[in-house]
Amino acid sequence: MSFISPRNMILAGAMLWATQAFAAGGHADPVAPILLALIVILLTAKLAGALFERLGQPAVLGELLGGVLLGNLILLNPAWNFFEPLRASVIQQDWAVVLDSLARLGVIILLFEVGFESSVKGMMQVGASSFIVAIIGVIAPFILGYAVSWIFIKELPAQLAAMVPADFSLSYVHMFMGAVLCATSVGITARVFKDLGKLQTKEAQIILGAAVIDDVLGLIILAIVAGIISAAQAGQALALGEIVRLIVLALVFIGGTLALGHFLLPKLMAQIAKLRASGMMLLVALVLAFGLSYLANAIGLAAIIGAFAAGLILEEEHFKSFRDKFKLEDLLKPLAAVLVPIFFVLMGIQVRLETFANLSVLGVAAGITLTAIIGKQVCGLGALQKGLDRVTIGVGMIPRGEVGLIFAGIGKSLNVIDDATFSAVVIMVIVTTLVTPPVLKLTLARREKALAGG
Amino acid sequence: MSFISPRNMILAGAMLWATQAFAAGGHADPVAPILLALIVILLTAKLAGALFERLGQPAVLGELLGGVLLGNLILLNPAWNFFEPLRASVIQQDWAVVLDSLARLGVIILLFEVGFESSVKGMMQVGASSFIVAIIGVIAPFILGYAVSWIFIKELPAQLAAMVPADFSLSYVHMFMGAVLCATSVGITARVFKDLGKLQTKEAQIILGAAVIDDVLGLIILAIVAGIISAAQAGQALALGEIVRLIVLALVFIGGTLALGHFLLPKLMAQIAKLRASGMMLLVALVLAFGLSYLANAIGLAAIIGAFAAGLILEEEHFKSFRDKFKLEDLLKPLAAVLVPIFFVLMGIQVRLETFANLSVLGVAAGITLTAIIGKQVCGLGALQKGLDRVTIGVGMIPRGEVGLIFAGIGKSLNVIDDATFSAVVIMVIVTTLVTPPVLKLTLARREKALAGG
Repeated sequence: MSFISPRNMILAGAMLWATQAFAAGGHADPVAPILLALIVILLTAKLAGALFERLGQPAVLGELLGGVLLGNLILLNPAWNFFEPLRASVIQQDWAVVLDSLARLGVIILLFEVGFESSVKGMMQVGASSFIVAIIGVIAPFILGYAVSWIFIKELPAQLAAMVPADFSLSYVHMFMGAVLCATSVGITARVFKDLGKLQTKEAQIILGAAVIDDVLGLIILAIVAGIISAAQAGQALALGEIVRLIVLALVFIGGTLALGHFLLPKLMAQIAKLRASGMMLLVALVLAFGLSYLANAIGLAAIIGAFAAGLILEEEHFKSFRDKFKLEDLLKPLAAVLVPIFFVLMGIQVRLETFANLSVLGVAAGITLTAIIGKQVCGLGALQKGLDRVTIGVGMIPRGEVGLIFAGIGKSLNVIDDATFSAVVIMVIVTTLVTPPVLKLTLARREKALAGG
Repeated sequence: MSFISPRNMILAGAMLWATQAFAAGGHADPVAPILLALIVILLTAKLAGALFERLGQPAVLGELLGGVLLGNLILLNPAWNFFEPLRASVIQQDWAVVLDSLARLGVIILLFEVGFESSVKGMMQVGASSFIVAIIGVIAPFILGYAVSWIFIKELPAQLAAMVPADFSLSYVHMFMGAVLCATSVGITARVFKDLGKLQTKEAQIILGAAVIDDVLGLIILAIVAGIISAAQAGQALALGEIVRLIVLALVFIGGTLALGHFLLPKLMAQIAKLRASGMMLLVALVLAFGLSYLANAIGLAAIIGAFAAGLILEEEHFKSFRDKFKLEDLLKPLAAVLVPIFFVLMGIQVRLETFANLSVLGVAAGITLTAIIGKQVCGLGALQKGLDRVTIGVGMIPRGEVGLIFAGIGKSLNVIDDATFSAVVIMVIVTTLVTPPVLKLTLARREKALAGG
């Protein structure tokens, strides 16, 4: 590697310094910091991903840890704070807002791709298993989360206590902690299965279906618990109508999407093909993905649920009369190659390693992390079909990712959890996110060995 | 088109309304307005582009006019103000900042693609012509712009007069107007040639080369004029060192890029190929494009000049030992298909049709627009080779686009031009941008007919 020699690195650094030092105001373009951040993030993602693939690990683990490295450079030198704006709880600097949005578009494209590789038929075949896995995956963590909260949290958070009637029960706080542990973030798991080419396995399909149902169930539980708490804070009873409306909307969304896919999409596609315009395939696919993501978000579901649903109802054969030269999956790949790593590197960047240094927080964190992992392990037992790898299913449901963070953020804004508990939840999210790729890789390899041996 | 019937449209509208009206706060995702804007912009771009292609016009004209329509819906109904945040002089709302950045990335990808379809060798062959075309394309508009300003502007703008010594010459204002007319925005022209599959013609290559040189020359003139004016405002003489530094940096950038392409890139690519990681081609290409765009911007050139240079030095054969399944141009296409139309629709959205309603502004606007067009028409004469279509070259140099707006914005911030003159410059930019695609299409068709006839 004589080309990437220290001498050349220094030369390149000097050139970069010179251009920055002598920068004139000519066209000063707000895209400049975005370009710089994209270069660093994409290079880090590719190099770390390739390294981990060579070590036999999924590329996504490399991207996550590469991000952890970038974000925590500041611990080595306070001047290396370039990525701090990406770690703020409310992102404010323009370039950081753009990067954050690119990451969000990235995870939408990822779930759309994953949905496109699945089919409604395949999901239906494992539908019963998915449903039971999801139900267990909500009940078990809820009960365990309640229990851990009951062990560790002995009094109301000070700010909450000041706002509620004296007879406000601590059990609502425990219920909220239970709700936080219900969420499943399917992005990590889907990516690992995709990296390893295992998306078509029954286990993957069950997890994907269960994650969708989990999101709906988690949302309902969160709405109920948050509703009870806000109502108590206002001295009122819970408005049940809101929750019923939420459930109806979620069911209408899922039913409507399936009806759209079954009845309308084939006809619509035939009409669009008649336009005979070039490049329509990618446009139609993205409009469907973005549109259902938008609708899902509008009714309170995660946007990625909409993206997954869009991919699910879209089939390769819908495009048979389109005039495109390439397949849809080949057109999505370059978009995914640019956007998806941004999401995972940013998740890594947002990990604050210093949170692990607070011992009292660490105790609570260890408790809820263990709970989070055990709670989802029970899930595997819900899979009905014979010969399934129930451990893999349980492991695949572990990551809480950004969904757990969103739930915890709501809890913080309601004052149900205090800063220390919030930090513990963040550690739980980090650990469940980072352990899943290597463990999943392990259980899948073990499974393959067992199948080959049998 | 029974499927897109009024009844179905109303149903779809009602569904959208219902979801928005009943929106719960579950996962409220900041990506939602971005998704909505992307859907509207991409659909408008594709439908308007396909319509104009069917009418025998370049797709880019449809995208521009589709954008004009979207941006000016507010004139029909003040409530249709969704796109107003994209029209602010300083874009502030987060979703609008993201869309604006996507557009900027889009024009970078476009110029990178255009550069990739050109070669250093091809540019060298027409280098002398490009140089003379560029020189004439700067001198002629500068003199004409000075003359028009001399005719229309009889006294210093009030704000400027208050800031400068009493003996401050009005000729500096005329010089600034001349500088504003020098800029060539090559995005539109490059896109038209690309739409029509004519990027390989000598005319296209001459224009592209001239546009790069124009950017450098325009930048130098702007720096000199702006330097004189700021110095006069501060009661000092012009710091010549800054301008010399600018010229040296621009020459170093161009020379350095060519050296990078000739000596280092082949070796670097061979090293990267040895890593044997998948998906490296797109990464390497984008890092090069983003990196040179960043450097160009850092030394005060337009970012797109860097993107074009990156494409120019990159050759298909650099990737011969890479393990990629597709060609680079096929990988860039989906990215370009999403990002490039955003740039042109946004340019259309930013056109304020109401500026055409002010009669006194319209007079100045007509003067400088005519000047802008005639000034670049002289360029064609600078093309040396026999048998070239000199009218096409002149027409291709007409658009001022965002570069003209940036120059005018600097003038406004220096108080050299007042609001009315700024509006006139905006109209000039709009007209030169909108007339180029159809006229270029016309001259190219006439040329083809003449060649077929001869």
